[in-house]
Amino acid sequence: MLRYWTAGESHGPSLVALVDGFPAGLAVDSSAIDAELVRRQGGYGRGGRQRIETDAVRFLSGLWRGVTLGSPLALEVVNRDAKLERLDDVERPRPGHADLPGAVKHLGGVRAVLERASARETAARVAAGALARQLLAVFGIDVAGWVTELGGLALGAAEGALPELRTRRDSSAVYSLHPERDAEVTALIDRVGKEGDTLGGVVEVRVDGLPIGLGTHAQWDRKLDGRLAQAVMAVQAIKGVEIGLGFEAARRRGSLVHDPIHYDPAVRDTRQLGFTRPTNNAGGLEAGITNGQPLVVKAAMKPISTLRKPLESVNLLTKQPEEAAYERSDVCAVSAASVIVENVVAFTVAEALVDKFGGDSVEEMQARWTLFHDLARRR
Amino acid sequence: MLRYWTAGESHGPSLVALVDGFPAGLAVDSSAIDAELVRRQGGYGRGGRQRIETDAVRFLSGLWRGVTLGSPLALEVVNRDAKLERLDDVERPRPGHADLPGAVKHLGGVRAVLERASARETAARVAAGALARQLLAVFGIDVAGWVTELGGLALGAAEGALPELRTRRDSSAVYSLHPERDAEVTALIDRVGKEGDTLGGVVEVRVDGLPIGLGTHAQWDRKLDGRLAQAVMAVQAIKGVEIGLGFEAARRRGSLVHDPIHYDPAVRDTRQLGFTRPTNNAGGLEAGITNGQPLVVKAAMKPISTLRKPLESVNLLTKQPEEAAYERSDVCAVSAASVIVENVVAFTVAEALVDKFGGDSVEEMQARWTLFHDLARRR
Amino acid sequence: MLRYWTAGESHGPSLVALVDGFPAGLAVDSSAIDAELVRRQGGYGRGGRQRIETDAVRFLSGLWRGVTLGSPLALEVVNRDAKLERLDDVERPRPGHADLPGAVKHLGGVRAVLERASARETAARVAAGALARQLLAVFGIDVAGWVTELGGLALGAAEGALPELRTRRDSSAVYSLHPERDAEVTALIDRVGKEGDTLGGVVEVRVDGLPIGLGTHAQWDRKLDGRLAQAVMAVQAIKGVEIGLGFEAARRRGSLVHDPIHYDPAVRDTRQLGFTRPTNNAGGLEAGITNGQPLVVKAAMKPISTLRKPLESVNLLTKQPEEAAYERSDVCAVSAASVIVENVVAFTVAEALVDKFGGDSVEEMQARWTLFHDLARRR
Amino acid sequence: MLRYWTAGESHGPSLVALVDGFPAGLAVDSSAIDAELVRRQGGYGRGGRQRIETDAVRFLSGLWRGVTLGSPLALEVVNRDAKLERLDDVERPRPGHADLPGAVKHLGGVRAVLERASARETAARVAAGALARQLLAVFGIDVAGWVTELGGLALGAAEGALPELRTRRDSSAVYSLHPERDAEVTALIDRVGKEGDTLGGVVEVRVDGLPIGLGTHAQWDRKLDGRLAQAVMAVQAIKGVEIGLGFEAARRRGSLVHDPIHYDPAVRDTRQLGFTRPTNNAGGLEAGITNGQPLVVKAAMKPISTLRKPLESVNLLTKQPEEAAYERSDVCAVSAASVIVENVVAFTVAEALVDKFGGDSVEEMQARWTLFHDLARRR
Repeated sequence: MLRYWTAGESHGPSLVALVDGFPAGLAVDSSAIDAELVRRQGGYGRGGRQRIETDAVRFLSGLWRGVTLGSPLALEVVNRDAKLERLDDVERPRPGHADLPGAVKHLGGVRAVLERASARETAARVAAGALARQLLAVFGIDVAGWVTELGGLALGAAEGALPELRTRRDSSAVYSLHPERDAEVTALIDRVGKEGDTLGGVVEVRVDGLPIGLGTHAQWDRKLDGRLAQAVMAVQAIKGVEIGLGFEAARRRGSLVHDPIHYDPAVRDTRQLGFTRPTNNAGGLEAGITNGQPLVVKAAMKPISTLRKPLESVNLLTKQPEEAAYERSDVCAVSAASVIVENVVAFTVAEALVDKFGGDSVEEMQARWTLFHDLARRR
Repeated sequence: MLRYWTAGESHGPSLVALVDGFPAGLAVDSSAIDAELVRRQGGYGRGGRQRIETDAVRFLSGLWRGVTLGSPLALEVVNRDAKLERLDDVERPRPGHADLPGAVKHLGGVRAVLERASARETAARVAAGALARQLLAVFGIDVAGWVTELGGLALGAAEGALPELRTRRDSSAVYSLHPERDAEVTALIDRVGKEGDTLGGVVEVRVDGLPIGLGTHAQWDRKLDGRLAQAVMAVQAIKGVEIGLGFEAARRRGSLVHDPIHYDPAVRDTRQLGFTRPTNNAGGLEAGITNGQPLVVKAAMKPISTLRKPLESVNLLTKQPEEAAYERSDVCAVSAASVIVENVVAFTVAEALVDKFGGDSVEEMQARWTLFHDLARRR
Repeated sequence: MLRYWTAGESHGPSLVALVDGFPAGLAVDSSAIDAELVRRQGGYGRGGRQRIETDAVRFLSGLWRGVTLGSPLALEVVNRDAKLERLDDVERPRPGHADLPGAVKHLGGVRAVLERASARETAARVAAGALARQLLAVFGIDVAGWVTELGGLALGAAEGALPELRTRRDSSAVYSLHPERDAEVTALIDRVGKEGDTLGGVVEVRVDGLPIGLGTHAQWDRKLDGRLAQAVMAVQAIKGVEIGLGFEAARRRGSLVHDPIHYDPAVRDTRQLGFTRPTNNAGGLEAGITNGQPLVVKAAMKPISTLRKPLESVNLLTKQPEEAAYERSDVCAVSAASVIVENVVAFTVAEALVDKFGGDSVEEMQARWTLFHDLARRR
Repeated sequence: MLRYWTAGESHGPSLVALVDGFPAGLAVDSSAIDAELVRRQGGYGRGGRQRIETDAVRFLSGLWRGVTLGSPLALEVVNRDAKLERLDDVERPRPGHADLPGAVKHLGGVRAVLERASARETAARVAAGALARQLLAVFGIDVAGWVTELGGLALGAAEGALPELRTRRDSSAVYSLHPERDAEVTALIDRVGKEGDTLGGVVEVRVDGLPIGLGTHAQWDRKLDGRLAQAVMAVQAIKGVEIGLGFEAARRRGSLVHDPIHYDPAVRDTRQLGFTRPTNNAGGLEAGITNGQPLVVKAAMKPISTLRKPLESVNLLTKQPEEAAYERSDVCAVSAASVIVENVVAFTVAEALVDKFGGDSVEEMQARWTLFHDLARRR
């Protein structure tokens, strides 16, 4: 059972992800994790803090000479802007944040809540996911995410192989697949930023190379669609999740939704077992189980809640109307969200991989992968 | 810790929900659970099976003279159409179902999978949710769901108090809030059914009367938004989940998304603590915590996967192309989905209520509810 | 992930075990489960109720033509003595029972607690364990338990092969391995029973045929020693748990405790990988991982808390001293405890087996078992 | 829901405990945690490493100005003897350790396993428990542990109030309650150490000030007796766990085991609700629920597995007989075990406290504590 939790406040000493149940024998590329952390800090529209930090992961445990031991891994990302002790409480809760409900829940102040609810915490989730995807890579499972909408601008479809899409994305200032639209998008961000407002958007993650049979249909809390939805919706500022066609599936007839099943013995990829689908409207999941098609997950990110031109709020001490607090913030973090969602999806898929193929050692998982596909093909 | 799991196949002896951690001292109205079960069987567009069964719950445990004991409750819904032993295996997997991925996963046949993956299982989830909402009702928390879109037809907004909306919904053949549109909708269902095709739609659930402070921002796997998304996406045929504005939030500016915080000492509802919001775009959740506004969850249901005019498939024994199997099925089950999603949302909210106020006895929970609001107001 | 929970009161309609994560493809011998249920009802010293019930399991789900589907299994044991609705509350809590602490905890009455806390609930645990051991049997893993002490009488050691020990046990009136001592033991039970008093004892469970490598050392809540201790201590009336030498290990020097490691390529049993141990003081577990030796678990059962010659108690309504309530009860249930502990150990070991070898299908588990031992031997 | 996990290897950079679900508003005394860490390193019979390290906790998260935020706390204990990268693999597995079963399980080497299985990991558990007991202290719940047997020497009973017992224990070189026996004990340790052998012992933990009603009888995996047994048995080298009389209870008649219930309105401690017990054979737990009496848990520790005069083993590369590896180790660590068991018991009790009284804020927990005792007394 692969699982993880995080700890850490926005301005505390560090962020930590504790990853438990990770198989032994994986040579970890720490710089690839750092690359995801740096990508999370980027994207046009980010504020000053991203220039203060250059995140890098440090392993407090779980590795020997760069290889996983099978023990829990504690991944630390140090906060270079650690200053929590010097920060004061906040009296004017920001609409859209945890500020008000969190303070009421804990019968305490706003600082106690906002430090943990901050999107900075997602650095730890990215670190965990970027580790997990290295396990996926051993099995030829590849994960990538990008921005498909920003501030209402639809930025075009995702067609092609993941390596090619990744190259295009990495040349876009906003992590879209259409860098030729960047000028239009950054102009919008600039304009909205000048007005003291913020923007959201939609991100998409695709996972290629999945076998048939990850997840289960058998119990509601183990279905892979539900677990993905939880992991993605639990990312700060996400308000919607779709798998495959998502809401569009609700608007089509069945004959135009379900992906016909074909069989072609010439299909070389053993994980397909010869089955092909002319379409992938299901987004790779049927009844909570991967079907050998690419997994496609979309998520809607609301605009940043901290506005330079603040919203109406209330002073919690005086109960008088005041403007919401403003701490240095971004105009738009949809690019970052694409990195976060990409990595939490990667972790969730790795959980399902470990559920199916075991988690003691990479060597045994690989032998079982081959065994499973042999057994399945023989049927 | 309130939790539940289900067991049961579509044509097996019975469906069971085991509910653990339910507080002692609640007088259960079993007929109200039955009413939800019957509602789940209804809605225009359902097939023959719904006429065979008239579901009713039986408590195998957990009650004494109709009152919860604090022990686990085993809720049984007997399958009147139990005939699993006489049913044969299926060789032609239905696209959109668990049939193919499930059979491959388990190195077995299709029957072994489809019986459990069937939407009939949701009767057990409805029973558990319909029990949980009776706990919510003690605290004035009310839950209702309806259909907002069917087959691409948008059926109008939800405005008004829940009791009134419920009345309107219950007079609609498709569980929408606009029975005046029923003729249009049922005509569409009839037309599509005659063509051997199926329809999906969108359902919405609203929870009124929530206090501030259910859920948490502190750990990804305990955030209420993520837990709701899991519970809803794990319902058969659901492919998208939204909270509040959902994807629409991604397309608006921050100043038009976040709900301003006002304070009005004259607000009588103690659970509001005087805070009001002129809008509810967040759908009642900020950072995974309820904010005292109505919770609003939407879900997209794909069309039924079993088509009378079957899709292309493959015979698993011969590997030759054949039409997918057809077992008696519905043209449209979006109305039923509204009942299911309503009840899984109810259960998830009850989990969060028990997390916050404890689960030993209703009496203690009620005293703590008052205590919490007293403490919170005094701050 | 194999897991289970139970529901059911002593005099309610039925007891239920919901078993989730059980692999597909096992042909279940329902009569073998019934045999364990009947054994649980036996043993010299039992009271009247055991003559009312003859427990038998009924599968509400999870089977098709007697074979597991990979879906959750709901096992029902009907209470023939169901009469909860007619029973009154109890005002005089019995020392040693949940009566007083449970009533206080739930701010309720004693009936609400004692019905669930009753040892009758263990019938559901036995059913779940008796199912799980059928999975173990596929891998040549055999489980048996017996009484080693009763009322202070030490009944002799366990030496020999399990089938032989099982035969001896089954010929003993008290499920010891030394039926020649039965007369002595039953005389003690009779004498104590006449005095209105009760007796406890010690039971032992041995699991043969285990592979090396079940369980883990890596995280405290996944260690197999801890999980076994939880499962056993959570059985009604158990107050002590030992693995291997247990407390005796604390009294010896290290050189007389730890089991030397030898290697003999002639060992035929592939699961041993050639390693042998001249002793088994560890009881088959080192650092929470099975080491290929028999697992040995002991448990101490306190005497039955319900005494015919009642203990001092207090009337909860009047707060005046009164004798504790007496409901029909046993003088000694140590024989039953041996059955219960045997079966909860079996379930816990099956959990660890599924953790290591996966839980999708018995066919895949078997292939992986062979694969693992091949890989391990090649090193 | 309060929970924790650890990470860290014996010679890796640091040990980490991630504590999730800890209530907001507790002023943490970090030096009291350090004191427990230092106590864990002490006790007569320890080897060289304890002189290298002087453990101290560092909070990577969860605190603001020394007060808990309600967010997860990451507690780090740095390894001053961090040198894992320079250490080689080990070919001669030590009997009694994870070495052999762990290496086989992971198809890897011994180093990968022993670093995590090492008792050094318990420093993280002690840190977590020492944090948790500060929460207990707010409610007047006090925890202390000591050595009752060492190398077969019974060191006398525990009678008196905890503060007094703690003083006596802290003046004993081996953490027993009878420092007058120290000379005898240390002489034994010296003698056995000179012979290259090791010693185990028995430790006891007592928790005073518990309310009635922590834990539950309702589900096997939530019973407090089972959870305590898991936590304690999962401590390195523990092979037996007892609650209250433990195995002695199996040898007495019921009338001499169960603790009579009396009522005395003059009892001042509100948590007793007027109920008294002339004995505490149950060790404070009836049916998995605290009964207001002191909790008493005993644990048996086997002798250290690493012997200076090594046991027989096998070279894993050559499969030839060789002596087991020897790394610097202790002759006896029973004193340390008393600290570890004390702190894991403290954590487990804190879990049950949070289950009963909630975990959002200390302020709310305190108000609920009063409320509960008011409601319970009024019945």
